Amino acid sequence: MNRKFIFELPMSVRDYELDVQGIVNNANYLHYLEHTRHAFCKAAGLSFRDMHEQGIDPVLAHVALDYHLPLRSGDEFLSRLRLSRRGPLFVFEQWILMADGRKVLDARIEVACLENGRLTRGEVLAEAFKDFLD
Amino acid sequence: MNRKFIFELPMSVRDYELDVQGIVNNANYLHYLEHTRHAFCKAAGLSFRDMHEQGIDPVLAHVALDYHLPLRSGDEFLSRLRLSRRGPLFVFEQWILMADGRKVLDARIEVACLENGRLTRGEVLAEAFKDFLD
Amino acid sequence: MNRKFIFELPMSVRDYELDVQGIVNNANYLHYLEHTRHAFCKAAGLSFRDMHEQGIDPVLAHVALDYHLPLRSGDEFLSRLRLSRRGPLFVFEQWILMADGRKVLDARIEVACLENGRLTRGEVLAEAFKDFLD
Amino acid sequence: MNRKFIFELPMSVRDYELDVQGIVNNANYLHYLEHTRHAFCKAAGLSFRDMHEQGIDPVLAHVALDYHLPLRSGDEFLSRLRLSRRGPLFVFEQWILMADGRKVLDARIEVACLENGRLTRGEVLAEAFKDFLD
Repeated sequence: MNRKFIFELPMSVRDYELDVQGIVNNANYLHYLEHTRHAFCKAAGLSFRDMHEQGIDPVLAHVALDYHLPLRSGDEFLSRLRLSRRGPLFVFEQWILMADGRKVLDARIEVACLENGRLTRGEVLAEAFKDFLD
Repeated sequence: MNRKFIFELPMSVRDYELDVQGIVNNANYLHYLEHTRHAFCKAAGLSFRDMHEQGIDPVLAHVALDYHLPLRSGDEFLSRLRLSRRGPLFVFEQWILMADGRKVLDARIEVACLENGRLTRGEVLAEAFKDFLD
Repeated sequence: MNRKFIFELPMSVRDYELDVQGIVNNANYLHYLEHTRHAFCKAAGLSFRDMHEQGIDPVLAHVALDYHLPLRSGDEFLSRLRLSRRGPLFVFEQWILMADGRKVLDARIEVACLENGRLTRGEVLAEAFKDFLD
Repeated sequence: MNRKFIFELPMSVRDYELDVQGIVNNANYLHYLEHTRHAFCKAAGLSFRDMHEQGIDPVLAHVALDYHLPLRSGDEFLSRLRLSRRGPLFVFEQWILMADGRKVLDARIEVACLENGRLTRGEVLAEAFKDFLD
């Protein structure tokens, strides 16, 4: 329940992210999760722009999402993650909580690392992430 | 491989869906999949607008995505689905293929049905979908 | 140059807002501007959700944008606005500055106010905004 | 009223483009307009991907939008454009009509042409567009 996280980003719903049902559209959660991973990488000293310019492009391989509770206009939430490695893949466990602790979403995001368009074992990322890996 | 589908929508990449890596941003695949489900529902005589006005709101419960091949500017693709039921959930198996048949994405989307904000067994949807369920 | 503003929101670029050119896609500026207006309204005690539930819907009538400088990955910026009234329309002058003061975007956004789908003179909004109007 | 256009793209609303008011969010019209310009360029033999790889990047300089009628779920529409030149800028006049001819949106989009990040007189684009310019 109270899982250990290595990075937390407080965020809030923007009204343009809502759909006609008055809840955040399902695709926007992937935006929240990506933004959280990039903020984590930035905090860890890794810039996606720099990596891209060096020919290194992390790309999603697998995503699993469990939606528990919809976010609505005005909601504030916490976006948390932890990181581990499974073979050549980096596994981000991510979850979103309401400010009061209720669970909004659970995610497992597996990321592969391309160098100049070819799949790698991710050694560059592994080195950069070494202090953060489970 | 050549799985049976009950609905197919030809689509193409729009350049605003690309990210800085030159590939379609991961969240946009959920847009493609949602649009395909809604187009299927419309073809089956179901309107999300009408359902919403009657207090019936399908919402995502679980999503699993496998990304095989990125889509790029100018790519045309086929978005296919089939539908089954697992307890109160409707399970959309969806997949995206390049025009030449290469697999882009596999998805399993489980949808719950709310009536006036409360989880239901989905009997209204089940009736509407009865000719399409596996 | 140093125009008087009544509300300022610090924001930063999220990488999913970039396009293949490595700059924020033109449409996302309208998201930034809308989010700033909604944050201003919230600070002024007005909730779009509440208004919508009362049948009051502000809608855009006219938009004029001048793009001066593109935003890129990692950029932090200030989003500012001032508000005046022109007949039944509310005029948001909005502008975006880099953290170092360089101008990114100028916008003039004219908003009409619908009540139950019909154009009004905007008296409800005018009352709510009376302390903020130029 | 019945202005001469040089390119027309039939499009339809996708439900994820709607906001909580049940109408297409204002920013998505810029997506529709961009997609129409890119489809026009493609029809004219110009690829944004190729241009970008050659260091040529068209960027928006000015945008003016008049919103006449909101688009809603299920709406089909026509997106039209014509093209002229004003000094170094390319001026796209664009408009969106309901299938029944009612006007949805008028836009004037002024595009500058960068080569390797520097503003140019746009001679490459002018040559490519020479059969289409007013």
